[in-house]
Amino acid sequence: MNTSTDHIIKSYDQELDRLRGEIVRMGELAVAQLEASIDVVERRDERAAQRVVDNDDAIDTMEHEISHGVVRLLALRAPMASDLRAVFSALRVASDIERIGDYAANVAKRSIPLSMVAPVSPAHGLKHLAQLAAASVRKVLNAYREDDADMAYEVWRDDVDVDEAYNALFRELLTYMMEDPRSITSCTHLLFMAKNIERIGDHATNIAENIWFVVKGEPLEAPRKKGDEPHVTHE
Amino acid sequence: MNTSTDHIIKSYDQELDRLRGEIVRMGELAVAQLEASIDVVERRDERAAQRVVDNDDAIDTMEHEISHGVVRLLALRAPMASDLRAVFSALRVASDIERIGDYAANVAKRSIPLSMVAPVSPAHGLKHLAQLAAASVRKVLNAYREDDADMAYEVWRDDVDVDEAYNALFRELLTYMMEDPRSITSCTHLLFMAKNIERIGDHATNIAENIWFVVKGEPLEAPRKKGDEPHVTHE
Repeated sequence: MNTSTDHIIKSYDQELDRLRGEIVRMGELAVAQLEASIDVVERRDERAAQRVVDNDDAIDTMEHEISHGVVRLLALRAPMASDLRAVFSALRVASDIERIGDYAANVAKRSIPLSMVAPVSPAHGLKHLAQLAAASVRKVLNAYREDDADMAYEVWRDDVDVDEAYNALFRELLTYMMEDPRSITSCTHLLFMAKNIERIGDHATNIAENIWFVVKGEPLEAPRKKGDEPHVTHE
Repeated sequence: MNTSTDHIIKSYDQELDRLRGEIVRMGELAVAQLEASIDVVERRDERAAQRVVDNDDAIDTMEHEISHGVVRLLALRAPMASDLRAVFSALRVASDIERIGDYAANVAKRSIPLSMVAPVSPAHGLKHLAQLAAASVRKVLNAYREDDADMAYEVWRDDVDVDEAYNALFRELLTYMMEDPRSITSCTHLLFMAKNIERIGDHATNIAENIWFVVKGEPLEAPRKKGDEPHVTHE
């Protein structure tokens, strides 16, 4: 291998590392948005909610920059199969994080009409659900940073806890609505917020599957369905 | 330009055309899934609903093949800026279609628990909403096939009709729930189904924005927010 090829390969690796760093930063911003969105639900702070909504643009911009960077990198270099896998995975992970940011912004957006109607106590169930989802996203970002397939597997496996918390909250909200029809409007907002957070858990598992695939070179066993609401029949 | 370069450029264009054809076929499959999902809601056919859910795998597989093909193409060739824009847009459009397929499968999946509970008359409002969304997706696929920015603009502009139909259905379902608490479970499923279809409209507008950007070289004016539920405060 001559020095020139060596140099190209080295800087390619450096660019991949830089890319990975940007994706992790983007993910940290998305988790911060999720935590802020739950905070504004609790505080019923309309202006803070609007700030969370507005901040989502920064995540969208980061995703555009990352994916344009990936495409330009691919156009200028000819990576090998294993590198291609990592590059391709980076595109997917960035797209999952962008959607996590979208869902977090939607939770904040829903809190605005919610703050105008009667308070409903299941809001604490929403916080619990959000904490589980935020912990999953943080863990999967660590797994991505460290290329740690075992840690990614744990996130994938533990998504069932997020789903169970969602299903419990779903049933609780339905009971509230049946007992007190005046709570229907606010409970409907809480239902959509809960669904948004449950979907964040699904995107964390998508990222976990990607990490596993890049590290192990084979798909994670019994892949989860990618669609919304995998446990809809149990609701 | 020598013959060899000419040959490479020509086959690059051919590959882009082939890619475009695959994406349109994938889109047609997604629209067919949307139409089938509404059909199973009306007929309350649980087995047919399960077939729609299962068919979503075919769309996911097509998206994976398309995006892997794109990445391989980029790795092997060095396209120019304008080609890069088209290639990049193809990745985005395929991703939007994959999500349209997901949402259609979710509508079908929701119809299974719905068929076990009391019937609710707003189901016809759901059909109307789905017809509007399906028409948007068909039109934006035509615009993509023909590189027609004006047609894409019409889809983008007319998404407000999908949003209005969604908001009307949302209010109708809330009224039903308040008037008859026994309808709450089925109306909740219908709410989520309506939201899934409204999101399909948003993905059609994302595709429209992509077409506009590739043809015109600049973003469509006053870009729509990409998040879920852009009109949540009007619900």
